[in-house]
Amino acid sequence: MSETVAPSHPFDAAVELIPAGDGLFAGHTSADYANMVGPFGGITAATLVRAVQQHPDRLGDPLSLTVNFAGPVADGPFEIAARAVRTNRSTQHWALELTQDGVVATTATAVFGTRRDTWSSDEITIPAVPDPDSVAPGGFPDFIAWARNYEMRFVEGGIPKLESVEHPDSTSTLWVRDTPARPLDFAALTAMSDVFFPRVFLRRGKFLPAGTVTLTVYFHADAAALAEQADAAVLGSARAQRFGKGYFDQSAELWGRDGVLLATAHQLVYFKD
Amino acid sequence: MSETVAPSHPFDAAVELIPAGDGLFAGHTSADYANMVGPFGGITAATLVRAVQQHPDRLGDPLSLTVNFAGPVADGPFEIAARAVRTNRSTQHWALELTQDGVVATTATAVFGTRRDTWSSDEITIPAVPDPDSVAPGGFPDFIAWARNYEMRFVEGGIPKLESVEHPDSTSTLWVRDTPARPLDFAALTAMSDVFFPRVFLRRGKFLPAGTVTLTVYFHADAAALAEQADAAVLGSARAQRFGKGYFDQSAELWGRDGVLLATAHQLVYFKD
Repeated sequence: MSETVAPSHPFDAAVELIPAGDGLFAGHTSADYANMVGPFGGITAATLVRAVQQHPDRLGDPLSLTVNFAGPVADGPFEIAARAVRTNRSTQHWALELTQDGVVATTATAVFGTRRDTWSSDEITIPAVPDPDSVAPGGFPDFIAWARNYEMRFVEGGIPKLESVEHPDSTSTLWVRDTPARPLDFAALTAMSDVFFPRVFLRRGKFLPAGTVTLTVYFHADAAALAEQADAAVLGSARAQRFGKGYFDQSAELWGRDGVLLATAHQLVYFKD
Repeated sequence: MSETVAPSHPFDAAVELIPAGDGLFAGHTSADYANMVGPFGGITAATLVRAVQQHPDRLGDPLSLTVNFAGPVADGPFEIAARAVRTNRSTQHWALELTQDGVVATTATAVFGTRRDTWSSDEITIPAVPDPDSVAPGGFPDFIAWARNYEMRFVEGGIPKLESVEHPDSTSTLWVRDTPARPLDFAALTAMSDVFFPRVFLRRGKFLPAGTVTLTVYFHADAAALAEQADAAVLGSARAQRFGKGYFDQSAELWGRDGVLLATAHQLVYFKD
C-alpha cells in the first residue's frame, strides 16, 4: 500500500497533474503562482511539459515547446489533453490543449526526442555580469504572487517602479532561481523562460495591459546538463525587437553554470498603450 | 458561370488549396518548390497560412505561426484540416494538421487577429548593406528546385561551395525576392522566413543531413505595410545560437523598404555531423 505524499516544493505542487486516462490529466491552478490575471504563463507552460513527461507513450526529453495563450485561465481545476500526433525513430510530436469546463484556454505543440553526440558549438556567449552573490535580490512588487517563488537578482533592466521613466532599450538581465531552492529540470527551466516581464513595461517605464500571446522555447540542454546545474542560479537575458500596432516580440536566453546555454525562448506579446 | 483560371505565378500555384468543406482543404505538392527531400518547408508553412486565410471563419491577419515538421511530405496530394480553436474579440487561435493518406506530416498553430494603432518602436535596425542592384544574384546550386523561384543576392554567408571550408560564424544576410517578381503578401513572407539554409552548412563549410523540426514566425507588418512593399526585394538575415547533440536553433529577421521590420522567425533544426 502506498501513501500519497503532497509535493514539498510549491513549484511541484503547482504543476502536479493527476492522470485521468487516455492522455488526459487533471490539474488545479496554484495561488502561489498567480499573476495579475490568472496564473503565471510560465507555470502553465511548465504544466504542459509535465503532461507530456507523465504520458506513458513519451519518447525522450523536450526539444521544443510552443504555448498559445488563447484565453484566460480561471482559478480552479483544469484538464490537459496530450496527444502524440506522430512518433518517429528519435522525435515525437505532441499536440496539447488545456481546457476548463470544455472551453479551450491554452493550446500547445511540443517536440520531444532523444539526442546523440554531434559536432557542437556555441555561437553566443554568456554576458559578462557580476556573480549572483554580489547582486542584490529583489525586483518585483509583492502583489505579483508568482514572482515571490523566484529569487531574482537584476543586473540590468529591473521592473519599473512608481518613479520610473522611459528606458532607452528593453534589455533585462538577471540571475534567477527557485525559492526555496530546487534542482533544475525541464519543467522549471520552461517556467523560467517566461520570468521576463513584458518588455514594454521597461521601455515605457510603467505597467500597462499586456500579456503573452504565444511562447516558444528551444531546449539546448539535455537532462544530464540540467542535472549538473543542481539548484544554482540561472542567468536570463531578454529584449524586444519591434513594438507596434498592439504587439511586440521578445527573445531570451537562459544560461547555466560555466556559461552553458540551456534554452532560448521567444514570445509575441499583446499590449495596450 | 465562372471559369477556373490557373494561378499565373508558380508560388500561387504551389500554395493553391481547394476548399473541401468543414475546415478541410485539398492541396498538391509542387515540383517547382521541391527541396532535397519533399517540399521546401517555407512553401508548406505558406500553404498553412493560406488554409486559414481561405477559412470562412477567419478573423484578421496572421500575428504568429508555428509549424512542426513531424514527418516527410511525399510528392502528391495532401489535405489540411484547419480548426478555429478559440475566437476572442481581436484574436483567433488556430490548430492545423497536414495529412497524407490519413498520416500526419505537419502540425501547426497560428494566431490571427486585428491590429490597432499603439505606441511603436523599433529596437533593432536594418543592417547596413549595399543596395540589391549592386549585389550579384546567385547562391544556390541548381539542383535545389525551390531556390530557383527566388532571386537571392547574398551580402554575406552564401551557401557553401565544393571548395568551402569552415566559417567562423553562421550569419547569412541576403536580398531576396520572388522570381518572377510578385507583390509581397503574408503567404510569400512566410515562405521567405525559411529561405535561410541550415546554418550548420555555413559553419561546417559543407552540406549535411539537416532539416527544420519546428519553425515560428512573428508577423510585425500588417496587410497595409506588406502592400507598400509591392515586389521590392526583402532583406533577410539569419544566424544560429547553439549547435549540439543533433540540434541547433536559428533566428532571422526580414526587412522591407525603408528598413521596416516585417517579420522575425526562429527555428530548431536537426542535423547529423
